[in-house]
Amino acid sequence: MIALLAWWEIQCISSRVLRFVDINLRSIGQVMFQNNPLTGLLFLAAVAWGSYVGGVPRVFIGGLVAVVTATLTAQWLHVDDESLKSGLYGFNAYLTGLALPTFLTSSALLWAYVVLGGAVSVVATLGTANVLKTWKVGGLTAPFVLVTWLLLLATFAFSGIDSSALGYGGKVTPIDPASAQPLRIADFVQGVLKSISQVFLKGNGISALLFLSGLVVSSPAAAIFALVGAIVAVVTAHVLGAETELVTAGLLGFSPVLTAVALGAVFYRTSPSVVAYAVLGTVFTVIVQGAMMVALTPFAIPTLTAPFVLVSWLFLLPRQSFE
Amino acid sequence: MIALLAWWEIQCISSRVLRFVDINLRSIGQVMFQNNPLTGLLFLAAVAWGSYVGGVPRVFIGGLVAVVTATLTAQWLHVDDESLKSGLYGFNAYLTGLALPTFLTSSALLWAYVVLGGAVSVVATLGTANVLKTWKVGGLTAPFVLVTWLLLLATFAFSGIDSSALGYGGKVTPIDPASAQPLRIADFVQGVLKSISQVFLKGNGISALLFLSGLVVSSPAAAIFALVGAIVAVVTAHVLGAETELVTAGLLGFSPVLTAVALGAVFYRTSPSVVAYAVLGTVFTVIVQGAMMVALTPFAIPTLTAPFVLVSWLFLLPRQSFE
Amino acid sequence: MIALLAWWEIQCISSRVLRFVDINLRSIGQVMFQNNPLTGLLFLAAVAWGSYVGGVPRVFIGGLVAVVTATLTAQWLHVDDESLKSGLYGFNAYLTGLALPTFLTSSALLWAYVVLGGAVSVVATLGTANVLKTWKVGGLTAPFVLVTWLLLLATFAFSGIDSSALGYGGKVTPIDPASAQPLRIADFVQGVLKSISQVFLKGNGISALLFLSGLVVSSPAAAIFALVGAIVAVVTAHVLGAETELVTAGLLGFSPVLTAVALGAVFYRTSPSVVAYAVLGTVFTVIVQGAMMVALTPFAIPTLTAPFVLVSWLFLLPRQSFE
Repeated sequence: MIALLAWWEIQCISSRVLRFVDINLRSIGQVMFQNNPLTGLLFLAAVAWGSYVGGVPRVFIGGLVAVVTATLTAQWLHVDDESLKSGLYGFNAYLTGLALPTFLTSSALLWAYVVLGGAVSVVATLGTANVLKTWKVGGLTAPFVLVTWLLLLATFAFSGIDSSALGYGGKVTPIDPASAQPLRIADFVQGVLKSISQVFLKGNGISALLFLSGLVVSSPAAAIFALVGAIVAVVTAHVLGAETELVTAGLLGFSPVLTAVALGAVFYRTSPSVVAYAVLGTVFTVIVQGAMMVALTPFAIPTLTAPFVLVSWLFLLPRQSFE
Repeated sequence: MIALLAWWEIQCISSRVLRFVDINLRSIGQVMFQNNPLTGLLFLAAVAWGSYVGGVPRVFIGGLVAVVTATLTAQWLHVDDESLKSGLYGFNAYLTGLALPTFLTSSALLWAYVVLGGAVSVVATLGTANVLKTWKVGGLTAPFVLVTWLLLLATFAFSGIDSSALGYGGKVTPIDPASAQPLRIADFVQGVLKSISQVFLKGNGISALLFLSGLVVSSPAAAIFALVGAIVAVVTAHVLGAETELVTAGLLGFSPVLTAVALGAVFYRTSPSVVAYAVLGTVFTVIVQGAMMVALTPFAIPTLTAPFVLVSWLFLLPRQSFE
Repeated sequence: MIALLAWWEIQCISSRVLRFVDINLRSIGQVMFQNNPLTGLLFLAAVAWGSYVGGVPRVFIGGLVAVVTATLTAQWLHVDDESLKSGLYGFNAYLTGLALPTFLTSSALLWAYVVLGGAVSVVATLGTANVLKTWKVGGLTAPFVLVTWLLLLATFAFSGIDSSALGYGGKVTPIDPASAQPLRIADFVQGVLKSISQVFLKGNGISALLFLSGLVVSSPAAAIFALVGAIVAVVTAHVLGAETELVTAGLLGFSPVLTAVALGAVFYRTSPSVVAYAVLGTVFTVIVQGAMMVALTPFAIPTLTAPFVLVSWLFLLPRQSFE
């Protein structure tokens, strides 16, 4: 593996085209904090599979268009070279590029939206990083959440882009949580796997295994925390009485998965204390996921990864306690 | 009084149990900025009385469970010893522990919620303090507000916790302010007293007197500003045409009371200019209280002390003007 | 022109009254970033004309009352003299003083509101500036937006101030964007002009020309970017399928106009790259304008210049890229 990556790096040094490909692959890997082109490739394959099975190839294409736009924008804005090459300016755009075609129907304006979203996400990434470096905390996927929320909300004001799938309407229909049904073992496994694949807005078991393998080749610890985070999320949501359908679709678990990886394997050095802290954060992320679903009901937009961002900031800011 | 506190401090030095008790009492005192165990004891008595009269002993217990959880969490996270001993890591948890059983009905999950809220409030306190020290401003009760809002909102998404008392529903029923009725002297006194006791979510005159005596033993100035704040709030709300029922229940006055104490007697050195500034802030807090009640209507959650937090930050940030 | 301004400055040095007038005129000019009393005078004339034609003289008076209150408040709070003399403590108050009588009907409490809003906007300006200087970004019109939003929201909670014109109600009526009609040349010109005058909450072509002339005497570049911003906004909104009525009333263009001037002619040194960047920001401001109109629908308050503030912060924070 290491030899393969070393060989690839040599190819990139001598070719601007391959370097460009490398940056975009690392950007995709950075969605789950991995600065690794092979991880990016496996994630890309997972998204391709999920988009193919779901009959939405435009989602796969949207991600690519947005991440390439972002890399070009970042080069235009003369961002710092090291962060650029690590893929830190592209992962928010990649998620934006997946989200827009997931929630909006295809049209010429959708693609203008994807390009605009990709470009603006770089500006937002620069701005967020500038603010948050004051406290040595990263922007995480906040730029993706902010830019995508604004782009989705705007569709309700303009007739040019069809967002009827989001179901914005005059009447605020509150969440009416049905009592949780018993969680069978098959539901449980499905919920855990889809919690992982929903990080990329895909509810697909095979994609989940590809995402996990992408993590394994770069950081086995990250893969373990993703799995543990998904299990903790599914159990917590079930105990709180969440609707079984939401649990098994992974829709309450993708933010907790990211929190678990971020707190447990990326920003803190793993220790028994950190594991307990990461589990506390993961449990709280499930609650924030529920809270945000309720809070966003009047606006008819999805939470995206906002619960992960909020809780991770909260749990990363008191960093001194673990250093 | 000073001799009593000195004797108590000596007992605490030689006993870990008493020190633990001391920290929790000071935490309760810090809800109104008092680093004083006797104040905490009197506040505790006020809450006990209010909970007993109101028939909600679980509120009294909730506060204790949360504050003890917070102190243990803070010790686990190795927070700085001086702040810990001053009760600065517990007052947000104490309020969270009062609020959750006030708005939710009793169940096993409620107590899990209280413990979780107590623990997470410490993380939020550390995080908020870390951010705000950049501008030499404190977190005030922002961690309490944030954590409690999220916990309450989440109950609408999960069927395990009964939050029907909050009245979340599909239809947004706007506030329909009845014309204010003439404010008789008895109403006025009641409004002033309950504005003070509502800081701890209690509408009770005797509790209010216990709270005031708790302030007097620690800082007579704070007691005076609490009283002045309550009077200013009741008059302002009445002049603006607020519903008399809300005014006399103290529900428009508890945030202004906190603003008056914070600006007038805690964070600035009292002077004629500071008194005028504190009154301006107190009047504006009444308006923000009304604004936030409206803004939170679609979400069916209470404002808690958010108006106090927002206005106090606004009025504390330009600190240089008074130094 | 320069001789005239020099003569005026000499008069101001020898007269405290004229200096006071000068500060207030510069405050009005600063709404569009111009530290120039003649600009302020022309802007004042534009507002006077718009208020006269619209039959709302109270709007003209409201602006004056608020800006004078702000200048007095700023002097009381001992703000730094240079910023005070440049009008930096008054422009938020001026906008607050225009907005409150625009959305609320006349009453004694309205004028108390205008005075309170003027005074608190200075506190908010000091606070915002203190926070944002950490990242070398200005507060822009954020204090105006924050204070006015809170004052308007509160009217729904209190019966003393009539805000029925804002149409707050129990039912959230979503925006139902009619398909855009073909944009005729007369509509286009009207949309462009009113986009400029709506910065001061006025939909009037002659006022727009007065505003433009106010910009020209101080900064021709600012005038050009205001015009370009208005054109970009009208075209973008139309292409996105915005309702023609909103476009021609300038209601989707005033925030983009401010973004264009801020990014293109004030905070960055104009260059081809900066022009492209400013256009990107201007286009995105149109989308944020749409998004915020939707997001604020349940609260029945106007966006004011919040879209400009949000996008400009986003595009100013990554400042290093252009320096």
